[in-house]
Amino acid sequence: MPRQVTAFSNSTVKRLRSLRDKKHRRSEGLFLAEGLRILAEARDSGRLPEIVAFSEEGAAHPLAAEIIAATEAAGGEAIETTADILSKMSGKDNPQMLLGAYRQPETSIERIDRAKASLWIVVQALRDPGNIGTILRTGDAAGAGGLILIDDCADAYSVEAVRASMGAIFTQDVATARWQDFVAWLRSGDGQLVGTSLKASQDYLEADYVRPCFLLIGNEQQGLPANYEAECDLLVKIPMAGRADSLNAAMAAAVMSFAMIAGWRSGT
Amino acid sequence: MPRQVTAFSNSTVKRLRSLRDKKHRRSEGLFLAEGLRILAEARDSGRLPEIVAFSEEGAAHPLAAEIIAATEAAGGEAIETTADILSKMSGKDNPQMLLGAYRQPETSIERIDRAKASLWIVVQALRDPGNIGTILRTGDAAGAGGLILIDDCADAYSVEAVRASMGAIFTQDVATARWQDFVAWLRSGDGQLVGTSLKASQDYLEADYVRPCFLLIGNEQQGLPANYEAECDLLVKIPMAGRADSLNAAMAAAVMSFAMIAGWRSGT
Repeated sequence: MPRQVTAFSNSTVKRLRSLRDKKHRRSEGLFLAEGLRILAEARDSGRLPEIVAFSEEGAAHPLAAEIIAATEAAGGEAIETTADILSKMSGKDNPQMLLGAYRQPETSIERIDRAKASLWIVVQALRDPGNIGTILRTGDAAGAGGLILIDDCADAYSVEAVRASMGAIFTQDVATARWQDFVAWLRSGDGQLVGTSLKASQDYLEADYVRPCFLLIGNEQQGLPANYEAECDLLVKIPMAGRADSLNAAMAAAVMSFAMIAGWRSGT
Repeated sequence: MPRQVTAFSNSTVKRLRSLRDKKHRRSEGLFLAEGLRILAEARDSGRLPEIVAFSEEGAAHPLAAEIIAATEAAGGEAIETTADILSKMSGKDNPQMLLGAYRQPETSIERIDRAKASLWIVVQALRDPGNIGTILRTGDAAGAGGLILIDDCADAYSVEAVRASMGAIFTQDVATARWQDFVAWLRSGDGQLVGTSLKASQDYLEADYVRPCFLLIGNEQQGLPANYEAECDLLVKIPMAGRADSLNAAMAAAVMSFAMIAGWRSGT
């Protein structure tokens, strides 16, 4: 049976709250996901939280009740608490009525099975957690296998990234690697590394993308470093019609991903 | 010559700060834009601020000095101030060293010249100002004429939307309209209204888009209301490969916009 917890000083409450910090996520090996829709997505992907917290209102939904029961049946902890405490945990004024702490998967690049998908998205020094989450969601929609984070990126397991991923954090593989280690791993097997660059002469719609394709997206401000571009097997440009010289990183990932799968669908 | 202002209580400082609120933007008819890159973009699009505020550091850049001089030459006000005060104005801890208050253009739908572009993006009840700004930026990149905001959208002139637009707020036309008024205006001339829907049977890559094309993007949570979909001349779907049933609204706008212009470029 779920415990009733109404004190901010409760140790489980404190532990869940602490997961908003990367340091604590790392030491605990857990991350937070909020909302019935995302927790249901996780469950459908075979993932249950180790701790689930909910309000009375949150537990009222049959699907929430199922997730809570399944969590306890699997040896997890369930606490019923107040909207105020849920708000503190999630950092939102208007919190979801259900949240879970999930085990963070191991993220070494060696765990990626490149053969299982045609497309993998690789981001370099992407700083905005919302962009990371949005790219995870786009990857899921495009049928990518997962997201590889290179250099100093925002944390894919942060509350903001998980929220923006709309559940894709549970369906997409996530790996983190230094550039050199990524390149060594990439070159140990099949894989075309594709970058977008304003300096490229080849139009993104006319390129020949070879599966498994690794789409490399650079930092929001600087784009890709020159030596990263040099490593690419293919550099393409998305023509810009207006005054701006670039798309938002997440937009570029979406336009490129859908252009690649469109090309594969049409058999080119 | 710019005035030196170091008091938070200064009336110009207060006036600029107040522009973070929609109510004051509306009563003043002004909005804030920050950063040399965006102010330079505005100047290149023929727009100067009515008030420009900057730090000593901000004025040191030759391009910033030009914008400041041009603002004063055009009868505008220039104030040199502190990083602290700039931070208060923009609401950012790490503020840009230059910001401007610009006259907000009139946004009635009748001012849109539909013939000037092949593509117009129409958003319905989009709540996130970051999404609005990102869609403006995407529209600029795709060569859209502008953005039409239907129903209760976030303000395109909010600090967050202007920031995310990366200057596209100055290159894209912006109109706001109620749905009925938009439809009446749309049907008074040429224009194909295209919506995306999970229920559509037509694949977005196989549709015939007719210029000027009005791409309709629905609310982040609910998508388009059924009667809005019914008004569309064409409903298409973007196939989803993963578990998620939709793209982020800004991603859908980007994928659709670039698919449309790709089709027109290839002559289909």
